[in-house]
Amino acid sequence: MTQIGARCWVIADGTIPPGESDNVEMFSHEGACMFNPGPEPADIEITLYFKDRPPVGPYRVNIPPERILHQKLNDLSDPEPVPHGVDYSIVIRSSAPIVVQHTRQDNRQPANAIMTTIAYAVV
Amino acid sequence: MTQIGARCWVIADGTIPPGESDNVEMFSHEGACMFNPGPEPADIEITLYFKDRPPVGPYRVNIPPERILHQKLNDLSDPEPVPHGVDYSIVIRSSAPIVVQHTRQDNRQPANAIMTTIAYAVV
Amino acid sequence: MTQIGARCWVIADGTIPPGESDNVEMFSHEGACMFNPGPEPADIEITLYFKDRPPVGPYRVNIPPERILHQKLNDLSDPEPVPHGVDYSIVIRSSAPIVVQHTRQDNRQPANAIMTTIAYAVV
Amino acid sequence: MTQIGARCWVIADGTIPPGESDNVEMFSHEGACMFNPGPEPADIEITLYFKDRPPVGPYRVNIPPERILHQKLNDLSDPEPVPHGVDYSIVIRSSAPIVVQHTRQDNRQPANAIMTTIAYAVV
Repeated sequence: MTQIGARCWVIADGTIPPGESDNVEMFSHEGACMFNPGPEPADIEITLYFKDRPPVGPYRVNIPPERILHQKLNDLSDPEPVPHGVDYSIVIRSSAPIVVQHTRQDNRQPANAIMTTIAYAVV
Repeated sequence: MTQIGARCWVIADGTIPPGESDNVEMFSHEGACMFNPGPEPADIEITLYFKDRPPVGPYRVNIPPERILHQKLNDLSDPEPVPHGVDYSIVIRSSAPIVVQHTRQDNRQPANAIMTTIAYAVV
Repeated sequence: MTQIGARCWVIADGTIPPGESDNVEMFSHEGACMFNPGPEPADIEITLYFKDRPPVGPYRVNIPPERILHQKLNDLSDPEPVPHGVDYSIVIRSSAPIVVQHTRQDNRQPANAIMTTIAYAVV
Repeated sequence: MTQIGARCWVIADGTIPPGESDNVEMFSHEGACMFNPGPEPADIEITLYFKDRPPVGPYRVNIPPERILHQKLNDLSDPEPVPHGVDYSIVIRSSAPIVVQHTRQDNRQPANAIMTTIAYAVV
Protein backbone atom coordinates (compact mmCIF):
# COMPACT_ATOMS: atom_id res chain seq x y z
CA MET A 1 0.00 0.00 0.00
CA THR A 2 1.26 3.42 -0.94
CA GLN A 3 1.84 5.60 2.10
CA ILE A 4 -1.13 7.94 2.35
CA GLY A 5 -1.09 11.39 3.85
CA ALA A 6 1.25 13.85 5.51
CA ARG A 7 2.53 14.49 9.04
CA CYS A 8 1.69 18.20 9.18
CA TRP A 9 -1.48 19.97 8.10
CA VAL A 10 -2.75 23.54 8.30
CA ILE A 11 -6.26 25.00 8.48
CA ALA A 12 -5.94 28.77 8.06
CA ASP A 13 -9.55 29.84 8.56
CA GLY A 14 -10.61 28.72 11.97
CA THR A 15 -13.52 30.16 13.87
CA ILE A 16 -16.38 28.74 15.87
CA PRO A 17 -19.46 30.84 15.08
CA PRO A 18 -20.62 32.56 18.29
CA GLY A 19 -23.68 31.49 20.22
CA GLU A 20 -24.72 28.55 22.35
CA SER A 21 -27.30 25.86 21.66
CA ASP A 22 -28.87 22.88 23.37
CA ASN A 23 -29.60 21.27 20.01
CA VAL A 24 -27.33 18.24 19.88
CA GLU A 25 -27.21 18.22 16.10
CA MET A 26 -27.91 21.65 14.60
CA PHE A 27 -25.43 23.83 16.44
CA SER A 28 -22.52 25.83 15.07
CA HIS A 29 -19.29 23.91 15.17
CA GLU A 30 -16.01 23.46 13.40
CA GLY A 31 -14.38 20.14 12.72
CA ALA A 32 -10.92 18.87 11.90
CA CYS A 33 -11.72 15.55 10.23
CA MET A 34 -8.62 13.40 10.63
CA PHE A 35 -8.00 10.00 9.07
CA ASN A 36 -5.19 7.60 9.91
CA PRO A 37 -5.01 5.17 6.97
CA GLY A 38 -1.83 3.41 8.01
CA PRO A 39 -0.74 0.56 10.29
CA GLU A 40 0.72 2.74 13.07
CA PRO A 41 -1.15 4.73 15.70
CA ALA A 42 -1.11 8.49 15.12
CA ASP A 43 -0.17 10.67 18.09
CA ILE A 44 -1.46 14.10 17.18
CA GLU A 45 -0.74 17.59 18.47
CA ILE A 46 -3.08 20.45 17.62
CA THR A 47 -1.87 24.04 18.09
CA LEU A 48 -4.01 27.14 17.65
CA TYR A 49 -2.65 30.50 16.46
CA PHE A 50 -4.41 33.82 17.03
CA LYS A 51 -4.35 37.43 15.84
CA ASP A 52 -3.07 39.09 18.96
CA ARG A 53 -1.88 36.54 21.49
CA PRO A 54 0.61 33.67 21.61
CA PRO A 55 -0.25 30.19 20.27
CA VAL A 56 -2.24 27.82 22.49
CA GLY A 57 -1.55 24.11 22.71
CA PRO A 58 -0.75 21.46 22.03
CA TYR A 59 -4.07 19.73 22.37
CA ARG A 60 -3.34 16.00 22.17
CA VAL A 61 -5.46 13.34 20.50
CA ASN A 62 -4.75 9.84 19.24
CA ILE A 63 -6.06 7.86 16.29
CA PRO A 64 -5.57 4.08 16.12
CA PRO A 65 -4.45 2.47 12.85
CA GLU A 66 -7.12 2.50 10.11
CA ARG A 67 -9.45 4.64 12.16
CA ILE A 68 -10.78 8.20 11.97
CA LEU A 69 -11.41 11.08 14.34
CA HIS A 70 -13.75 13.92 13.44
CA GLN A 71 -12.61 16.31 16.15
CA LYS A 72 -14.95 19.17 16.90
CA LEU A 73 -12.86 22.16 17.92
CA ASN A 74 -15.74 23.00 20.28
CA ASP A 75 -14.88 19.91 22.33
CA LEU A 76 -11.20 20.67 22.99
CA SER A 77 -10.59 21.74 26.60
CA ASP A 78 -7.00 21.02 27.60
CA PRO A 79 -4.97 23.27 27.93
CA GLU A 80 -8.02 25.58 27.55
CA PRO A 81 -11.39 25.73 25.76
CA VAL A 82 -11.45 27.23 22.28
CA PRO A 83 -13.18 30.61 22.38
CA HIS A 84 -16.25 31.17 20.19
CA GLY A 85 -16.41 34.05 17.75
CA VAL A 86 -12.62 34.40 17.60
CA ASP A 87 -10.48 33.80 14.49
CA TYR A 88 -7.61 31.33 14.65
CA SER A 89 -5.48 29.07 12.49
CA ILE A 90 -4.75 25.42 13.23
CA VAL A 91 -1.56 23.40 12.88
CA ILE A 92 -1.92 19.63 13.19
CA ARG A 93 1.22 17.51 13.64
CA SER A 94 1.07 13.72 13.63
CA SER A 95 3.56 10.96 14.37
CA ALA A 96 2.15 8.99 11.42
CA PRO A 97 0.83 10.16 8.03
CA ILE A 98 -2.81 11.28 8.16
CA VAL A 99 -5.28 13.15 5.95
CA VAL A 100 -7.16 16.20 7.27
CA GLN A 101 -10.30 17.90 6.00
CA HIS A 102 -11.77 21.08 7.48
CA THR A 103 -15.55 21.51 7.81
CA ARG A 104 -17.66 24.20 9.46
CA GLN A 105 -21.37 24.13 10.20
CA ASP A 106 -22.87 27.55 10.84
CA ASN A 107 -26.19 27.65 12.70
CA ARG A 108 -26.27 31.27 13.79
CA GLN A 109 -29.44 31.46 11.74
CA PRO A 110 -32.23 28.91 11.36
CA ALA A 111 -30.91 28.25 7.86
CA ASN A 112 -28.04 25.82 8.20
CA ALA A 113 -24.84 26.56 6.23
CA ILE A 114 -21.82 24.32 5.67
CA MET A 115 -18.40 24.59 4.07
CA THR A 116 -15.42 22.28 3.63
CA THR A 117 -11.92 22.01 2.21
CA ILE A 118 -9.10 19.54 2.29
CA ALA A 119 -6.57 21.15 4.63
CA TYR A 120 -3.12 22.31 3.49
CA ALA A 121 -0.59 19.49 3.59
CA VAL A 122 2.96 20.47 4.54
CA VAL A 123 5.40 18.37 2.52
CA MET B 1 -2.55 14.26 -23.95
CA THR B 2 -0.96 14.71 -20.56
CA GLN B 3 -1.99 11.98 -18.15
CA ILE B 4 -4.64 13.47 -15.89
CA GLY B 5 -5.35 12.42 -12.34
CA ALA B 6 -4.16 9.96 -9.73
CA ARG B 7 -4.87 6.35 -8.80
CA CYS B 8 -5.63 6.92 -5.12
CA TRP B 9 -7.78 9.60 -3.53
CA VAL B 10 -8.93 10.33 0.03
CA ILE B 11 -12.02 12.08 1.38
CA ALA B 12 -11.50 12.56 5.12
CA ASP B 13 -14.84 14.06 6.12
CA GLY B 14 -17.52 11.57 5.19
CA THR B 15 -20.98 11.56 6.70
CA ILE B 16 -24.48 11.20 5.31
CA PRO B 17 -26.68 13.60 7.28
CA PRO B 18 -29.30 11.59 9.17
CA GLY B 19 -32.93 11.41 8.15
CA GLU B 20 -34.94 9.90 5.32
CA SER B 21 -36.84 11.60 2.53
CA ASP B 22 -39.08 10.72 -0.36
CA ASN B 23 -38.03 13.86 -2.21
CA VAL B 24 -36.04 12.61 -5.19
CA GLU B 25 -34.00 15.79 -5.46
CA MET B 26 -33.81 17.67 -2.17
CA PHE B 27 -32.59 14.99 0.21
CA SER B 28 -29.38 14.83 2.20
CA HIS B 29 -26.65 12.95 0.38
CA GLU B 30 -22.94 12.76 -0.09
CA GLY B 31 -21.22 12.25 -3.40
CA ALA B 32 -17.85 11.10 -4.64
CA CYS B 33 -17.71 12.67 -8.08
CA MET B 34 -15.25 10.61 -10.10
CA PHE B 35 -13.97 11.37 -13.59
CA ASN B 36 -12.01 9.04 -15.85
CA PRO B 37 -10.38 11.30 -18.45
CA GLY B 38 -8.20 8.64 -20.06
CA PRO B 39 -8.46 5.93 -22.72
CA GLU B 40 -8.62 2.95 -20.31
CA PRO B 41 -11.56 1.80 -18.18
CA ALA B 42 -11.18 2.55 -14.48
CA ASP B 43 -11.87 -0.30 -12.07
CA ILE B 44 -12.47 1.38 -8.75
CA GLU B 45 -12.48 0.16 -5.17
CA ILE B 46 -14.02 2.30 -2.44
CA THR B 47 -13.19 1.54 1.21
CA LEU B 48 -14.77 3.24 4.21
CA TYR B 49 -12.97 3.81 7.51
CA PHE B 50 -14.73 4.45 10.81
CA LYS B 51 -14.03 5.70 14.33
CA ASP B 52 -14.53 2.50 16.23
CA ARG B 53 -14.82 -0.45 13.90
CA PRO B 54 -12.76 -2.02 11.10
CA PRO B 55 -12.84 -0.70 7.53
CA VAL B 56 -15.72 -1.76 5.26
CA GLY B 57 -15.27 -2.59 1.60
CA PRO B 58 -14.28 -2.61 -1.06
CA TYR B 59 -17.31 -1.33 -2.85
CA ARG B 60 -16.62 -1.80 -6.58
CA VAL B 61 -17.61 0.53 -9.39
CA ASN B 62 -16.39 0.99 -12.95
CA ILE B 63 -16.04 4.04 -15.17
CA PRO B 64 -15.56 3.67 -18.94
CA PRO B 65 -12.93 5.77 -20.73
CA GLU B 66 -13.83 9.47 -20.97
CA ARG B 67 -16.87 9.08 -18.77
CA ILE B 68 -17.85 10.18 -15.26
CA LEU B 69 -19.60 8.69 -12.25
CA HIS B 70 -21.10 10.86 -9.54
CA GLN B 71 -21.49 8.12 -6.95
CA LYS B 72 -23.85 8.89 -4.10
CA LEU B 73 -22.56 7.16 -0.99
CA ASN B 74 -26.22 6.68 -0.08
CA ASP B 75 -26.57 4.27 -3.00
CA LEU B 76 -23.74 1.86 -2.10
CA SER B 77 -25.05 -1.45 -0.76
CA ASP B 78 -22.49 -4.20 -1.30
CA PRO B 79 -20.90 -5.36 1.02
CA GLU B 80 -23.29 -3.32 3.20
CA PRO B 81 -25.28 -0.04 3.13
CA VAL B 82 -23.53 3.09 4.39
CA PRO B 83 -25.04 4.14 7.72
CA HIS B 84 -26.55 7.62 8.03
CA GLY B 85 -25.41 9.98 10.76
CA VAL B 86 -22.06 8.22 11.18
CA ASP B 87 -18.65 9.73 10.45
CA TYR B 88 -16.29 7.95 8.08
CA SER B 89 -13.36 8.55 5.74
CA ILE B 90 -13.16 7.27 2.17
CA VAL B 91 -10.25 5.80 0.22
CA ILE B 92 -10.76 5.44 -3.53
CA ARG B 93 -8.31 3.31 -5.53
CA SER B 94 -8.49 3.10 -9.29
CA SER B 95 -6.74 0.99 -11.94
CA ALA B 96 -6.47 4.11 -14.14
CA PRO B 97 -5.86 7.76 -13.23
CA ILE B 98 -9.03 9.60 -12.22
CA VAL B 99 -10.01 12.88 -10.57
CA VAL B 100 -12.26 12.94 -7.49
CA GLN B 101 -14.30 15.76 -5.97
CA HIS B 102 -16.29 15.48 -2.76
CA THR B 103 -19.70 17.15 -2.40
CA ARG B 104 -22.33 17.02 0.31
CA GLN B 105 -25.90 18.29 0.19
CA ASP B 106 -27.49 18.75 3.60
CA ASN B 107 -31.28 18.85 3.74
CA ARG B 108 -31.87 18.22 7.42
CA GLN B 109 -33.54 21.62 7.39
CA PRO B 110 -35.77 23.18 4.75
CA ALA B 111 -32.85 25.47 3.89
CA ASN B 112 -30.59 23.52 1.56
CA ALA B 113 -26.82 23.63 2.25
CA ILE B 114 -23.95 22.41 0.07
CA MET B 115 -20.20 22.04 0.34
CA THR B 116 -17.44 20.73 -1.92
CA THR B 117 -13.70 20.14 -2.20
CA ILE B 118 -11.34 18.46 -4.58
CA ALA B 119 -10.37 15.26 -2.72
CA TYR B 120 -6.80 14.56 -1.55
CA ALA B 121 -4.70 12.98 -4.29
CA VAL B 122 -2.14 10.42 -3.13
CA VAL B 123 0.96 10.75 -5.29
CA MET C 1 7.69 37.15 -11.36
CA THR C 2 7.30 33.47 -10.68
CA GLN C 3 5.15 31.75 -13.29
CA ILE C 4 1.73 31.28 -11.72
CA GLY C 5 -0.70 28.52 -12.56
CA ALA C 6 -1.05 25.49 -14.79
CA ARG C 7 -2.17 24.82 -18.36
CA CYS C 8 -4.69 22.09 -17.55
CA TRP C 9 -7.34 22.01 -14.84
CA VAL C 10 -10.14 19.62 -13.89
CA ILE C 11 -13.47 20.16 -12.14
CA ALA C 12 -14.93 16.73 -11.40
CA ASP C 13 -18.30 17.70 -9.94
CA GLY C 14 -20.15 19.67 -12.56
CA THR C 15 -23.89 20.16 -12.58
CA ILE C 16 -26.19 23.11 -13.11
CA PRO C 17 -29.06 22.72 -10.65
CA PRO C 18 -32.31 22.31 -12.61
CA GLY C 19 -34.91 25.03 -12.94
CA GLU C 20 -35.20 28.37 -14.68
CA SER C 21 -35.37 31.85 -13.24
CA ASP C 22 -35.86 35.42 -14.39
CA ASN C 23 -33.94 36.67 -11.35
CA VAL C 24 -30.74 38.12 -12.75
CA GLU C 25 -28.81 37.53 -9.54
CA MET C 26 -30.30 34.75 -7.42
CA PHE C 27 -30.50 31.89 -9.91
CA SER C 28 -28.75 28.54 -9.86
CA HIS C 29 -25.52 28.57 -11.77
CA GLU C 30 -22.08 27.07 -11.88
CA GLY C 31 -18.92 28.98 -12.57
CA ALA C 32 -15.40 28.23 -13.70
CA CYS C 33 -13.50 31.22 -12.37
CA MET C 34 -10.38 31.55 -14.49
CA PHE C 35 -7.48 33.94 -13.92
CA ASN C 36 -4.66 34.69 -16.35
CA PRO C 37 -1.89 36.24 -14.24
CA GLY C 38 0.78 36.29 -16.92
CA PRO C 39 1.89 38.53 -19.81
CA GLU C 40 0.50 36.33 -22.63
CA PRO C 41 -3.14 35.94 -23.71
CA ALA C 42 -4.70 32.62 -22.70
CA ASP C 43 -6.56 30.70 -25.40
CA ILE C 44 -8.76 28.30 -23.51
CA GLU C 45 -10.62 25.14 -24.50
CA ILE C 46 -13.33 23.75 -22.22
CA THR C 47 -14.49 20.16 -22.71
CA LEU C 48 -17.37 18.51 -20.85
CA TYR C 49 -17.51 14.80 -20.01
CA PHE C 50 -20.70 12.92 -19.18
CA LYS C 51 -21.90 9.65 -17.68
CA ASP C 52 -23.32 8.03 -20.75
CA ARG C 53 -22.41 9.97 -23.87
CA PRO C 54 -19.23 11.20 -25.58
CA PRO C 55 -17.47 14.39 -24.50
CA VAL C 56 -18.77 17.72 -25.79
CA GLY C 57 -16.52 20.57 -26.84
CA PRO C 58 -14.30 22.34 -27.02
CA TYR C 59 -15.97 25.52 -25.95
CA ARG C 60 -13.48 28.33 -26.65
CA VAL C 61 -12.85 31.42 -24.56
CA ASN C 62 -9.99 33.87 -24.31
CA ILE C 63 -8.51 35.81 -21.41
CA PRO C 64 -6.17 38.76 -22.03
CA PRO C 65 -2.97 39.11 -19.98
CA GLU C 66 -3.58 40.03 -16.32
CA ARG C 67 -7.33 39.68 -16.67
CA ILE C 68 -9.96 37.26 -15.34
CA LEU C 69 -13.02 35.46 -16.69
CA HIS C 70 -15.67 34.07 -14.37
CA GLN C 71 -17.38 31.86 -16.93
CA LYS C 72 -20.85 30.68 -16.05
CA LEU C 73 -21.35 27.22 -17.51
CA ASN C 74 -24.97 28.28 -18.05
CA ASP C 75 -23.79 30.78 -20.66
CA LEU C 76 -21.85 28.39 -22.92
CA SER C 77 -23.69 27.68 -26.16
CA ASP C 78 -21.24 26.62 -28.88
CA PRO C 79 -21.07 23.75 -29.82
CA GLU C 80 -24.24 23.25 -27.69
CA PRO C 81 -25.87 24.57 -24.50
CA VAL C 82 -24.97 22.83 -21.24
CA PRO C 83 -27.98 20.82 -20.00
CA HIS C 84 -29.41 21.58 -16.55
CA GLY C 85 -29.79 18.83 -13.97
CA VAL C 86 -27.16 16.63 -15.61
CA ASP C 87 -23.83 15.63 -14.06
CA TYR C 88 -20.61 16.32 -15.94
CA SER C 89 -16.89 16.87 -15.41
CA ILE C 90 -14.90 19.73 -16.93
CA VAL C 91 -11.41 19.80 -18.44
CA ILE C 92 -9.94 23.25 -19.07
CA ARG C 93 -6.84 23.55 -21.26
CA SER C 94 -5.05 26.85 -21.73
CA SER C 95 -2.21 28.06 -23.95
CA ALA C 96 -0.83 30.04 -20.99
CA PRO C 97 -0.73 29.21 -17.27
CA ILE C 98 -3.96 30.11 -15.47
CA VAL C 99 -5.61 29.43 -12.10
CA VAL C 100 -9.11 27.95 -11.90
CA GLN C 101 -11.62 27.90 -9.05
CA HIS C 102 -14.99 26.15 -9.18
CA THR C 103 -18.07 27.72 -7.57
CA ARG C 104 -21.73 26.72 -7.60
CA GLN C 105 -24.71 28.74 -6.44
CA ASP C 106 -27.82 26.66 -5.80
CA ASN C 107 -31.16 28.49 -5.79
CA ARG C 108 -33.56 25.60 -6.17
CA GLN C 109 -34.93 26.73 -2.82
CA PRO C 110 -35.48 30.26 -1.51
CA ALA C 111 -32.50 29.66 0.79
CA ASN C 112 -29.39 30.35 -1.25
CA ALA C 113 -26.52 27.83 -1.00
CA ILE C 114 -22.95 28.15 -2.28
CA MET C 115 -19.85 25.97 -2.52
CA THR C 116 -16.34 26.40 -3.91
CA THR C 117 -13.01 24.68 -4.41
CA ILE C 118 -9.77 25.38 -6.18
CA ALA C 119 -9.91 23.06 -9.21
CA TYR C 120 -7.46 20.19 -9.71
CA ALA C 121 -4.27 21.35 -11.42
CA VAL C 122 -2.69 18.86 -13.81
CA VAL C 123 1.09 19.13 -13.57
CA MET D 1 10.24 22.87 12.59
CA THR D 2 9.53 22.19 8.94
CA GLN D 3 8.99 25.37 6.99
CA ILE D 4 5.24 25.75 6.52
CA GLY D 5 3.55 27.51 3.64
CA ALA D 6 4.37 29.38 0.46
CA ARG D 7 5.22 32.96 -0.50
CA CYS D 8 2.63 33.36 -3.25
CA TRP D 9 -1.04 32.38 -3.22
CA VAL D 10 -3.94 32.84 -5.61
CA ILE D 11 -7.70 33.08 -5.05
CA ALA D 12 -9.37 32.94 -8.47
CA ASP D 13 -13.00 33.49 -7.49
CA GLY D 14 -13.23 36.80 -5.76
CA THR D 15 -16.42 38.78 -5.38
CA ILE D 16 -18.09 40.63 -2.55
CA PRO D 17 -21.83 39.96 -2.83
CA PRO D 18 -23.63 43.27 -3.48
CA GLY D 19 -25.64 45.07 -0.86
CA GLU D 20 -24.98 46.98 2.34
CA SER D 21 -25.82 46.08 5.91
CA ASP D 22 -25.60 47.56 9.38
CA ASN D 23 -25.51 44.07 10.90
CA VAL D 24 -22.01 43.74 12.34
CA GLU D 25 -22.01 39.97 12.01
CA MET D 26 -24.42 38.71 9.34
CA PHE D 27 -23.34 40.73 6.32
CA SER D 28 -21.91 39.56 3.01
CA HIS D 29 -18.15 39.54 3.00
CA GLU D 30 -15.16 37.77 1.60
CA GLY D 31 -12.08 36.88 3.55
CA ALA D 32 -8.48 35.99 2.82
CA CYS D 33 -7.50 34.09 5.96
CA MET D 34 -3.73 34.34 6.24
CA PHE D 35 -1.51 32.55 8.73
CA ASN D 36 2.15 33.25 9.40
CA PRO D 37 3.46 30.14 11.19
CA GLY D 38 7.14 31.08 11.14
CA PRO D 39 9.58 33.15 13.19
CA GLU D 40 9.81 36.10 10.77
CA PRO D 41 7.25 38.87 10.19
CA ALA D 42 5.35 38.55 6.91
CA ASP D 43 5.13 41.67 4.77
CA ILE D 44 2.24 40.99 2.42
CA GLU D 45 1.12 42.56 -0.85
CA ILE D 46 -2.38 41.89 -2.15
CA THR D 47 -3.16 42.64 -5.81
CA LEU D 48 -6.60 42.41 -7.40
CA TYR D 49 -7.18 41.48 -11.05
CA PHE D 50 -10.37 42.28 -12.96
CA LYS D 51 -12.20 41.36 -16.16
CA ASP D 52 -11.84 44.60 -18.03
CA ARG D 53 -9.45 46.94 -16.28
CA PRO D 54 -5.84 46.89 -15.08
CA PRO D 55 -4.85 45.28 -11.76
CA VAL D 56 -5.28 47.29 -8.57
CA GLY D 57 -2.79 47.25 -5.74
CA PRO D 58 -0.76 46.39 -3.91
CA TYR D 59 -2.72 46.56 -0.72
CA ARG D 60 -0.20 46.10 2.09
CA VAL D 61 -0.70 44.21 5.35
CA ASN D 62 1.66 42.71 7.89
CA ILE D 63 1.45 39.63 10.07
CA PRO D 64 3.80 39.19 13.04
CA PRO D 65 5.50 35.82 13.63
CA GLU D 66 3.11 33.05 14.77
CA ARG D 67 0.06 35.24 14.26
CA ILE D 68 -2.90 35.28 11.88
CA LEU D 69 -4.84 37.85 9.92
CA HIS D 70 -8.31 37.13 8.61
CA GLN D 71 -8.49 40.03 6.18
CA LYS D 72 -11.95 40.98 4.96
CA LEU D 73 -11.65 42.22 1.40
CA ASN D 74 -14.47 44.61 2.32
CA ASP D 75 -12.11 46.43 4.65
CA LEU D 76 -9.31 47.18 2.18
CA SER D 77 -9.22 50.85 1.20
CA ASP D 78 -5.74 51.85 0.04
CA PRO D 79 -5.15 52.36 -2.90
CA GLU D 80 -8.95 52.13 -3.35
CA PRO D 81 -11.97 50.32 -1.86
CA VAL D 82 -12.89 46.95 -3.35
CA PRO D 83 -16.12 47.29 -5.34
CA HIS D 84 -19.11 45.11 -4.40
CA GLY D 85 -20.79 42.89 -6.97
CA VAL D 86 -17.70 42.80 -9.21
CA ASP D 87 -15.65 39.69 -10.01
CA TYR D 88 -11.93 39.70 -9.36
CA SER D 89 -9.00 37.39 -8.65
CA ILE D 90 -6.48 37.87 -5.86
CA VAL D 91 -2.71 37.40 -5.78
CA ILE D 92 -1.08 37.43 -2.34
CA ARG D 93 2.70 37.75 -2.10
CA SER D 94 4.50 37.47 1.21
CA SER D 95 8.07 38.02 2.36
CA ALA D 96 7.78 34.92 4.57
CA PRO D 97 5.95 31.61 4.00
CA ILE D 98 2.26 31.79 4.91
CA VAL D 99 -0.89 29.69 4.42
CA VAL D 100 -4.01 31.22 2.86
CA GLN D 101 -7.62 30.06 2.93
CA HIS D 102 -10.47 31.76 1.08
CA THR D 103 -13.92 32.08 2.65
CA ARG D 104 -17.06 33.90 1.55
CA GLN D 105 -20.19 34.59 3.55
CA ASP D 106 -23.21 35.45 1.44
CA ASN D 107 -26.05 37.29 3.17
CA ARG D 108 -27.96 38.64 0.19
CA GLN D 109 -30.85 36.57 1.52
CA PRO D 110 -31.95 35.97 5.10
CA ALA D 111 -30.57 32.45 4.77
CA ASN D 112 -26.85 32.65 5.40
CA ALA D 113 -24.54 30.77 2.99
CA ILE D 114 -20.81 30.07 3.32
CA MET D 115 -18.05 28.54 1.22
CA THR D 116 -14.32 27.97 1.64
CA THR D 117 -11.23 26.55 -0.01
CA ILE D 118 -7.54 26.47 0.66
CA ALA D 119 -6.12 28.96 -1.85
CA TYR D 120 -3.78 27.93 -4.68
CA ALA D 121 -0.17 27.84 -3.56
CA VAL D 122 2.40 28.90 -6.13
CA VAL D 123 5.53 26.77 -5.74
